[in-house]
Amino acid sequence: MVKGVMRPGHVQIRVLDMEEAVKHYRDLMGLIEVNRDASGRVYLKGWTESDKFSVVLREADTPGCDFNGFKVRNNEVLDQLHSDLKDFGCNIEEIPAGELEDCGRRIRFDSPTGHIFEIYAEKERTGKWGISSTNPEAWPRGLKGMKATRFDHCLFYGDDLDGTFDLFTNVLGFDLSEQVVDPEGNRIAQFFTCSIKEHDIAFIKHEEKGKLHHVSFYLDTWEDVLRAADLISMEDVPLDIGPTRHGLTHGQTIYFFDPSGNRSEVFCGGDYFYPDQEPITWTADQLGKAIFYHDRQLNERFLSVLT
Amino acid sequence: MVKGVMRPGHVQIRVLDMEEAVKHYRDLMGLIEVNRDASGRVYLKGWTESDKFSVVLREADTPGCDFNGFKVRNNEVLDQLHSDLKDFGCNIEEIPAGELEDCGRRIRFDSPTGHIFEIYAEKERTGKWGISSTNPEAWPRGLKGMKATRFDHCLFYGDDLDGTFDLFTNVLGFDLSEQVVDPEGNRIAQFFTCSIKEHDIAFIKHEEKGKLHHVSFYLDTWEDVLRAADLISMEDVPLDIGPTRHGLTHGQTIYFFDPSGNRSEVFCGGDYFYPDQEPITWTADQLGKAIFYHDRQLNERFLSVLT
Amino acid sequence: MVKGVMRPGHVQIRVLDMEEAVKHYRDLMGLIEVNRDASGRVYLKGWTESDKFSVVLREADTPGCDFNGFKVRNNEVLDQLHSDLKDFGCNIEEIPAGELEDCGRRIRFDSPTGHIFEIYAEKERTGKWGISSTNPEAWPRGLKGMKATRFDHCLFYGDDLDGTFDLFTNVLGFDLSEQVVDPEGNRIAQFFTCSIKEHDIAFIKHEEKGKLHHVSFYLDTWEDVLRAADLISMEDVPLDIGPTRHGLTHGQTIYFFDPSGNRSEVFCGGDYFYPDQEPITWTADQLGKAIFYHDRQLNERFLSVLT
Amino acid sequence: MVKGVMRPGHVQIRVLDMEEAVKHYRDLMGLIEVNRDASGRVYLKGWTESDKFSVVLREADTPGCDFNGFKVRNNEVLDQLHSDLKDFGCNIEEIPAGELEDCGRRIRFDSPTGHIFEIYAEKERTGKWGISSTNPEAWPRGLKGMKATRFDHCLFYGDDLDGTFDLFTNVLGFDLSEQVVDPEGNRIAQFFTCSIKEHDIAFIKHEEKGKLHHVSFYLDTWEDVLRAADLISMEDVPLDIGPTRHGLTHGQTIYFFDPSGNRSEVFCGGDYFYPDQEPITWTADQLGKAIFYHDRQLNERFLSVLT
Repeated sequence: MVKGVMRPGHVQIRVLDMEEAVKHYRDLMGLIEVNRDASGRVYLKGWTESDKFSVVLREADTPGCDFNGFKVRNNEVLDQLHSDLKDFGCNIEEIPAGELEDCGRRIRFDSPTGHIFEIYAEKERTGKWGISSTNPEAWPRGLKGMKATRFDHCLFYGDDLDGTFDLFTNVLGFDLSEQVVDPEGNRIAQFFTCSIKEHDIAFIKHEEKGKLHHVSFYLDTWEDVLRAADLISMEDVPLDIGPTRHGLTHGQTIYFFDPSGNRSEVFCGGDYFYPDQEPITWTADQLGKAIFYHDRQLNERFLSVLT
Repeated sequence: MVKGVMRPGHVQIRVLDMEEAVKHYRDLMGLIEVNRDASGRVYLKGWTESDKFSVVLREADTPGCDFNGFKVRNNEVLDQLHSDLKDFGCNIEEIPAGELEDCGRRIRFDSPTGHIFEIYAEKERTGKWGISSTNPEAWPRGLKGMKATRFDHCLFYGDDLDGTFDLFTNVLGFDLSEQVVDPEGNRIAQFFTCSIKEHDIAFIKHEEKGKLHHVSFYLDTWEDVLRAADLISMEDVPLDIGPTRHGLTHGQTIYFFDPSGNRSEVFCGGDYFYPDQEPITWTADQLGKAIFYHDRQLNERFLSVLT
Repeated sequence: MVKGVMRPGHVQIRVLDMEEAVKHYRDLMGLIEVNRDASGRVYLKGWTESDKFSVVLREADTPGCDFNGFKVRNNEVLDQLHSDLKDFGCNIEEIPAGELEDCGRRIRFDSPTGHIFEIYAEKERTGKWGISSTNPEAWPRGLKGMKATRFDHCLFYGDDLDGTFDLFTNVLGFDLSEQVVDPEGNRIAQFFTCSIKEHDIAFIKHEEKGKLHHVSFYLDTWEDVLRAADLISMEDVPLDIGPTRHGLTHGQTIYFFDPSGNRSEVFCGGDYFYPDQEPITWTADQLGKAIFYHDRQLNERFLSVLT
Repeated sequence: MVKGVMRPGHVQIRVLDMEEAVKHYRDLMGLIEVNRDASGRVYLKGWTESDKFSVVLREADTPGCDFNGFKVRNNEVLDQLHSDLKDFGCNIEEIPAGELEDCGRRIRFDSPTGHIFEIYAEKERTGKWGISSTNPEAWPRGLKGMKATRFDHCLFYGDDLDGTFDLFTNVLGFDLSEQVVDPEGNRIAQFFTCSIKEHDIAFIKHEEKGKLHHVSFYLDTWEDVLRAADLISMEDVPLDIGPTRHGLTHGQTIYFFDPSGNRSEVFCGGDYFYPDQEPITWTADQLGKAIFYHDRQLNERFLSVLT
């Protein structure tokens, strides 16, 4: 948080059929639907999140991710980073407050890997869903499905990892927590954190720009991952892989697909990272184990990514 | 237990290299080594088992299962079943006490699927390993690896499922707890219990006689299954599939291979069965889900079986 | 099961206010309400139970247990045990089929400790709740509260443990799985099983006859025990003790009270028992640890029992 | 982390008998012994910590806490905070590098509640214990006892909560994450974070200055809390309370005592906190539930604190 970026605050996901998508993210994954706007976008959040929303679904002709936004500490940080991003050479767009309902002005910028990011300082704070901020119970009644607790991070695929490394570490103040390095010393995967979470954003090397691998949500326990897997089967949802563990971060995970083909992850556990630590390094010859710790090999589906 | 068969009491497994096998069953799976006999066989048990041993490893040129023995309530039961097995037409061999050290006389017989079974009434009772039978602690210190608690069951592949059904239900008094039935109404998988465990022995239809699919051991929790999976990766043991859940029995499981190619299972959970229940039926078109509840398809390895 | 008693099949609990009681057993504990009869009794079951009901609530002026019934294998067993119970000297009452709706004729008898028991061979089989017996999913949707899976056992307090020992082992064919023995060698607690569960019925020495300590229900995991504890707090239910572990059986448990003052238990785990094992013995000087393994002392509430 | 304090980095605990203490912290709790210095102090750490040590045991005539140190981002932060602490009016002592072996210079200061704190920027980085920083396995072999993963935080008792609030928020840049407020609006408990952990330090109102309530260590799961509870019983360690959940932070916990009477905590789970959230407030009338969520009342032992 040295430069004032606090956390992944929202992601806008393109879906082919809104009602099918709502069934996936709300009824299956257990996100809370909090709003629909005039353009038809649906806003959701995990129940532990204190801001009003973190996931925005937009109906479109192709699946994928429109943008991933990060909340910064305050407007001074927002202005400073705006200026720094300009200096770095990003294409920048200023989005006025209210374009996403209940969200303040956003600074939108692109990364060298061709992804669209945003920063913003203000969003309506509605508190955790279903429990009070005074004498709060341990968890709310009425959660559905997988009971996803929060939007946690995105994993993107793209070409210019070095440029994006520069952007996220030097401009935005993230730390490199984990990496995969090939024999020539090139990073082919890089995980960044702006907190002590093992990753707040991650990138894997890919020849094309701007690809989405998955959007990830946090669960409390390995038993929740099992129940998520059970629900995937009960609802006949396409499974990618899991339950299993990642080598990178050591989180316990399952990957599956929404009806539009976007890959979802729910996971629990995982390591923590402080900025005085050396990044964890996986070597490319161990990439299978780095990604899927138990199978120790990539499945074909893992390589598929979205526009 | 209506005819007096109590439980799966031992299994003799053929291994190609004894010291490699001991590393697998003792150091990785956490069975307790309790004896080695003059012929070089190694005897082990899970720590919760009250008899002296349940797993016998024998060095041989081919992997597989020599025999699977069941403990019966007493010698009267043993004699009665001996007679009943003769009447059924089994090939019978009487093994004198002491052939397996510390085990009483055994009645060995074959099944229509070509597997070798045994019943016996006496084995040295040494109590649970590492804890007292007076004021016992919750678990013993010093367990290794996966901390397998007991030998639980075998799954065999063979041709004459109907004959073996007759043998296990009508002669030995087991109940059919679960089955997979094809469109013509033939059972292609049958799980039997002599207790309230969902399975004490199981068979899957296969063109050849006498094949072993796996030998299974019980763990306490889904978290233990995760740690078993981690150990499989740390020790670079060949993984078959998991962590996952079975549809049949609903147990949570992982399959992997010993150095000789024998498939091992560790699992937890699973349903229970009383003899007044109807057997659970899976239909053959759902065989993938019946076997691997999350993946909902059989992997190629699943079909591989041993001599 | 040597004499043909299969399992604890039902318990009739007296409650002071039916609607409050239904909230406790159905909404909090998650039992399924399946019937109400003309006399106002409410019938419930745990979702994994294959018979129609296992818990009957009867509104009365005092709390406690009316009777605890066991299902036997068939009518031949029922008749034989009827005769054996008469020979043993029990006061016997024959209850016609239908007195409990959908239950066959019951043989009611008293124990030397002054408790009322029943055996019966027939009850309507409705299968597990919420899942099919063909291609069954892992668990049903829509379970409430603690999601109790089944009625598991009762613990009673009474005076003549030796007489009741004789009744349950010699007449009914149960095995003694665990006991607490005082310095003079008298059993002050005795746990019996008719299966491989560590206890299907248990008794603790007490100067008065016919007391109920608790009615117990099974949960799948230690995490379910935590969530049960959370619900107890959220609903402001009186807690007795837990989450903790018992020394006896090593199950993981929590005790709490229904609105009438009847003690409920939900628990998971616990050891298993085969009839060739020696019973586990706890010594009376370790009674605190035997009952509450972590606290190692009895709380005052533990000693309270019901009419 | 706005002012550059990263985390609780070490705590020096006074113990009456060093070898007894080492058995507690190393063999029972599973901390790794990494060093002993010329003055007889023993240095330990949790296996996931990247710096060389986090716990220092010093033999003394009274139990308690000598000081609690926080690692800051770098020497510039250290100098700035040094100056700010002076301005705030703390009594300050500069401890040269090497007084704690392998630790850089420390700035020691007192708080209005009478506790001794330190900040430092440098300590030898030895990496996580037992696993490599390249291709790291999920966990190391050979961990003992409770397998505590890291020193997590201290809870202190003292009088001037307002002054200490000022010190930790305004001078050191921590955020108030949780508080207990009495009817007059006074905070009687305050939890602070310098990361997204729900607490990196906590204080409860008490008439005397400078008291230690407990030193806390992190476990991975609720199942680990159970096993910790089991070990406490097996080793006959004095238990305070647990396994249970806190209302404050919602962590799952157990309290027990080292042989000198210092209270130890191991816990898992718990909420997370970002600086844009409102602090959670518990009202004093719910103090019992705030501290022990399931029991909803304080035990007598909870009120005992150390010199």
